[in-house]
Amino acid sequence: MRLNDRELADFERDGYLFIPNLFSAAEVEVLRAELPRIFALERPEILRAETGETRASLAMERYSEPFARLRRHPRLVEPGRKILGGEVYCHQYKIVVKDPFGALDFPWHQDFASWHAADGMPEPLAMNYAVFLDEVTEFNGPITFIPGSHRRGRREAEAEPLPGATPLYTLDTDMVRRLVAEGGLVAPKGPPGSGIFFHGCMAHASAPNISPWPRHIVYVTCNRVDNYIRKPTRPDYYASQDFTALEPLADDCLLQPATVAAE
Amino acid sequence: MRLNDRELADFERDGYLFIPNLFSAAEVEVLRAELPRIFALERPEILRAETGETRASLAMERYSEPFARLRRHPRLVEPGRKILGGEVYCHQYKIVVKDPFGALDFPWHQDFASWHAADGMPEPLAMNYAVFLDEVTEFNGPITFIPGSHRRGRREAEAEPLPGATPLYTLDTDMVRRLVAEGGLVAPKGPPGSGIFFHGCMAHASAPNISPWPRHIVYVTCNRVDNYIRKPTRPDYYASQDFTALEPLADDCLLQPATVAAE
Repeated sequence: MRLNDRELADFERDGYLFIPNLFSAAEVEVLRAELPRIFALERPEILRAETGETRASLAMERYSEPFARLRRHPRLVEPGRKILGGEVYCHQYKIVVKDPFGALDFPWHQDFASWHAADGMPEPLAMNYAVFLDEVTEFNGPITFIPGSHRRGRREAEAEPLPGATPLYTLDTDMVRRLVAEGGLVAPKGPPGSGIFFHGCMAHASAPNISPWPRHIVYVTCNRVDNYIRKPTRPDYYASQDFTALEPLADDCLLQPATVAAE
Repeated sequence: MRLNDRELADFERDGYLFIPNLFSAAEVEVLRAELPRIFALERPEILRAETGETRASLAMERYSEPFARLRRHPRLVEPGRKILGGEVYCHQYKIVVKDPFGALDFPWHQDFASWHAADGMPEPLAMNYAVFLDEVTEFNGPITFIPGSHRRGRREAEAEPLPGATPLYTLDTDMVRRLVAEGGLVAPKGPPGSGIFFHGCMAHASAPNISPWPRHIVYVTCNRVDNYIRKPTRPDYYASQDFTALEPLADDCLLQPATVAAE
């Protein structure tokens, strides 16, 4: 999985790349099979809402071998290196859960604002890979982006407390209006296994899931090694302090038999 | 505007008909030009949220001549007569406003449940026409339907208080799952002037508007005259007690010069 020049130019212009079927159905099934076990764990990395509803799991490489492999998957690590122009490490790793008929939504924000404020990440030399574990449709709260908004860099934003998570730095509505006037809106949708690579300064939001279908999306945040975080204030499962470069595994790593223990 | 047999069969099977560009841009402009004046009125028919945000206006025929004309427009009244099989009157007439970045959403419900419980409407011989005054996109909270859900008739539902409105009778999630398993989901989207005709027993919901674009939709509820309401409990601007059959105006009525006073 190497990005070609057109894909790289698209990413630079739009701030994201959508790749339907980045992972096969068989690969997705290996990951999905882990979900019931993961969300039954009682660990600090598993975040629940006050209602008991699961919101997210973090740092899955600590308790799931398939997710440990995904984190080092060449279809993620190699594009990350190419886009960010150097070795990358994993800053944050999570599964965000939007349950059927759930309340979870996200106001307009840029992720880099949090990484900068809460973790001391110096520059926006970090990005996310989103991997869909369920089909994402217009009905289950797709991530909605403002294409090109990453080119403005980090915008002024206000810290908004979010239940079961660290604060989001939300963009004010005038800023969002200006960014949308320039770039419009897009919400990539597609089958399980589809991937979105997106820049840490991309403005994005999402509506709640009004459908009977769950929406599990894995997010791997990778940061260029020389842009390691300087002032961590959060538990390390929110913001890793292991800055070791990710070494990609083999392309078929998700389909290989399990080894004795998770990495 | 007469429905052909295929359209009528579609409505009977699916519970709705979507007609892009039912009204022209010029006709929509006549209606849109009224909005600032209407939403500046201080009248009991103008509903506002506690935050001051406008939610809806009701019974616009009382204070807007263009909207008085729309209520009797042949492109609405004639399909209504044909679908419901007889003369129709207007039970409720409103503009629902989803402001940019607004909080307004609707859980899964059937309108007939309210008309039956709050107004004493005997049978589901009533329907809505929705007319888009703004473009409806995937981003500004489109109405989402479960096709075919009207065929199950009125389902058990729980009264849920809704700020600035009468209670909604919300469907429980098991019921919604069953209906969606049979019929799927659909959210008609299109330019201003598009219309949706939908049955009073159609299960529908909508997410909030996360975009910088407003979403104004007019709803005309028409009821068959012999199905007039028996036990009104709400102000008459929620549930009309004038059961006079709607007489359609001329097809170009929205483009005619204003007369001296509203009807």
